[in-house]
Amino acid sequence: MAKRLIPTLNRVLVEKIVPPTKTTAGILLPEKSTKLKSGKVVAVGPGLPGKAGNRIPVAVKEGDTVVLPDYGGTQVFLCDKEYHLYRDEDIPGTLHD
Amino acid sequence: MAKRLIPTLNRVLVEKIVPPTKTTAGILLPEKSTKLKSGKVVAVGPGLPGKAGNRIPVAVKEGDTVVLPDYGGTQVFLCDKEYHLYRDEDIPGTLHD
Amino acid sequence: MAKRLIPTLNRVLVEKIVPPTKTTAGILLPEKSTKLKSGKVVAVGPGLPGKAGNRIPVAVKEGDTVVLPDYGGTQVFLCDKEYHLYRDEDIPGTLHD
Amino acid sequence: MAKRLIPTLNRVLVEKIVPPTKTTAGILLPEKSTKLKSGKVVAVGPGLPGKAGNRIPVAVKEGDTVVLPDYGGTQVFLCDKEYHLYRDEDIPGTLHD
Amino acid sequence: MAKRLIPTLNRVLVEKIVPPTKTTAGILLPEKSTKLKSGKVVAVGPGLPGKAGNRIPVAVKEGDTVVLPDYGGTQVFLCDKEYHLYRDEDIPGTLHD
Amino acid sequence: MAKRLIPTLNRVLVEKIVPPTKTTAGILLPEKSTKLKSGKVVAVGPGLPGKAGNRIPVAVKEGDTVVLPDYGGTQVFLCDKEYHLYRDEDIPGTLHD
Amino acid sequence: MAKRLIPTLNRVLVEKIVPPTKTTAGILLPEKSTKLKSGKVVAVGPGLPGKAGNRIPVAVKEGDTVVLPDYGGTQVFLCDKEYHLYRDEDIPGTLHD
Repeated sequence: MAKRLIPTLNRVLVEKIVPPTKTTAGILLPEKSTKLKSGKVVAVGPGLPGKAGNRIPVAVKEGDTVVLPDYGGTQVFLCDKEYHLYRDEDIPGTLHD
Repeated sequence: MAKRLIPTLNRVLVEKIVPPTKTTAGILLPEKSTKLKSGKVVAVGPGLPGKAGNRIPVAVKEGDTVVLPDYGGTQVFLCDKEYHLYRDEDIPGTLHD
Repeated sequence: MAKRLIPTLNRVLVEKIVPPTKTTAGILLPEKSTKLKSGKVVAVGPGLPGKAGNRIPVAVKEGDTVVLPDYGGTQVFLCDKEYHLYRDEDIPGTLHD
Repeated sequence: MAKRLIPTLNRVLVEKIVPPTKTTAGILLPEKSTKLKSGKVVAVGPGLPGKAGNRIPVAVKEGDTVVLPDYGGTQVFLCDKEYHLYRDEDIPGTLHD
Repeated sequence: MAKRLIPTLNRVLVEKIVPPTKTTAGILLPEKSTKLKSGKVVAVGPGLPGKAGNRIPVAVKEGDTVVLPDYGGTQVFLCDKEYHLYRDEDIPGTLHD
Repeated sequence: MAKRLIPTLNRVLVEKIVPPTKTTAGILLPEKSTKLKSGKVVAVGPGLPGKAGNRIPVAVKEGDTVVLPDYGGTQVFLCDKEYHLYRDEDIPGTLHD
Repeated sequence: MAKRLIPTLNRVLVEKIVPPTKTTAGILLPEKSTKLKSGKVVAVGPGLPGKAGNRIPVAVKEGDTVVLPDYGGTQVFLCDKEYHLYRDEDIPGTLHD
């Protein structure tokens, strides 16, 4: 069965980050800290075709931690694992330490 | 009767892959593994005309295994076999082993 | 009375192909084989004007057997014979033996 | 009073052709032959401005017999005579003997 | 108080022509002759900005007698006199003797 | 507190002109003379970015007396004084003596 | 946990300025002075891709005090602190002393 999905055009494949609900010590975390929906980019498309035969670079890259929009995206399952496809323009930003 | 359909512009002709409902040994597969709709690209159009007399290359190619969108596409029958036509921009990605 | 219609811009004039309902030997054909709507292109326009004073070539040519979309097109009658006008981008593909 | 109307941009001024309802010999014509709405182009605009300071040529020319769309167009009266204004892209084709 | 209005972009300032309801000799004119709404162009804007730093020329000029669309336009009052502002693309044509 | 607002892109900041309701001698003015909504441009943005790295000049300039559209615009308060922000394309024209 | 958010494309990250409701001496401020919604830009994206492989500069920059639109924007939480993401074209202007 297929193991890898390469997105088309300016699409990006994202694995959602599920925020921990308790600390490693077992203490329950308040709901407040879970408000930002984020994910890890696992694959990006080649970009939309430009006017001059070029490709418009995709706004995020593989490995980026990205903020996810509240709505939209397409749910896909690869090896029973859930991923989401987004157009790069729908990704509001990237997260850094 | 016509045997071959060549799509126009950026359209692609896809034969849907029907996921097996049981293994070769006859064991029924759980419904979960069938969630990804996919197909095999059997023909692609020449691409949309670009601004400079060029053709914008189609995002997928003949033989590609593609993820299919949940909605859209045009059903066509060739020799009583069902195919679907999509605009390349509606194909979310390609699948690889 | 007018005998010839030359479509404007990227329009194409199509004569619908009515699929035979019985074989030459008189055997009734099952309805299934009639599912693909097709037509013969009898005239094409000069193409849409491009940005550089050029013409964007029309996606199909006179004599092509084309798949027809399920909806759309403009019905015209020339010498009491029915034809349909389509924009070339609405023609999903061409049929070949 | 004004006698001549010069359309702006890509507009064309059309005088509708009213199909005869009987032959010159007085025989009533069946309604079927009247199904194609057509008109004579009496004036065309200079064309839409192009990107390079040029004008995009209008798709039909003065004197052309044109097929008219079923809907749209603007009715104008010049010297109590009825005319219609159309954008050239709404004219589906020209008619020739 | 302000006496002159210079339209912006591709707008034109028009003074509507009220068709006479009777001849100079006092004979009432039938309503039919009043069907064409027209006006005199009293000012035009500099045109929309083009892609190359140029201005796209306005489709009508000061002094033109123009056909007016049935709807649209913005009513303005200058020194208690009524005028209308239109985008040049909404003016269907110019009238000439 | 902030004293100056510089609009972005092709926006213009306008202070509405409230027409006098009586003359300096105290005579009430009829409502008719107040029909034209106008304002004074107090700041303009740098213009929208053009295709060639340039800026498309804003259609009006600081100090201009402008006709205001009947609807639209964003109300802002600076030091308790009311201003309005408009896109330059929504300003129908400028007023001159 | 992530500490920095870099917006994509022409997005800007804004920390809203909450207007003081009383002076430092404890005197309550009237509601009138709070009417302008503003914020501090804490991060900007690289700009939208232009046609020539360039980037269209973002209309505001880090550190700018900006007027905020009445609606729109995406609420995000970073380290339990509230921020908002806007497209630069939705920011009506910048504020200066």
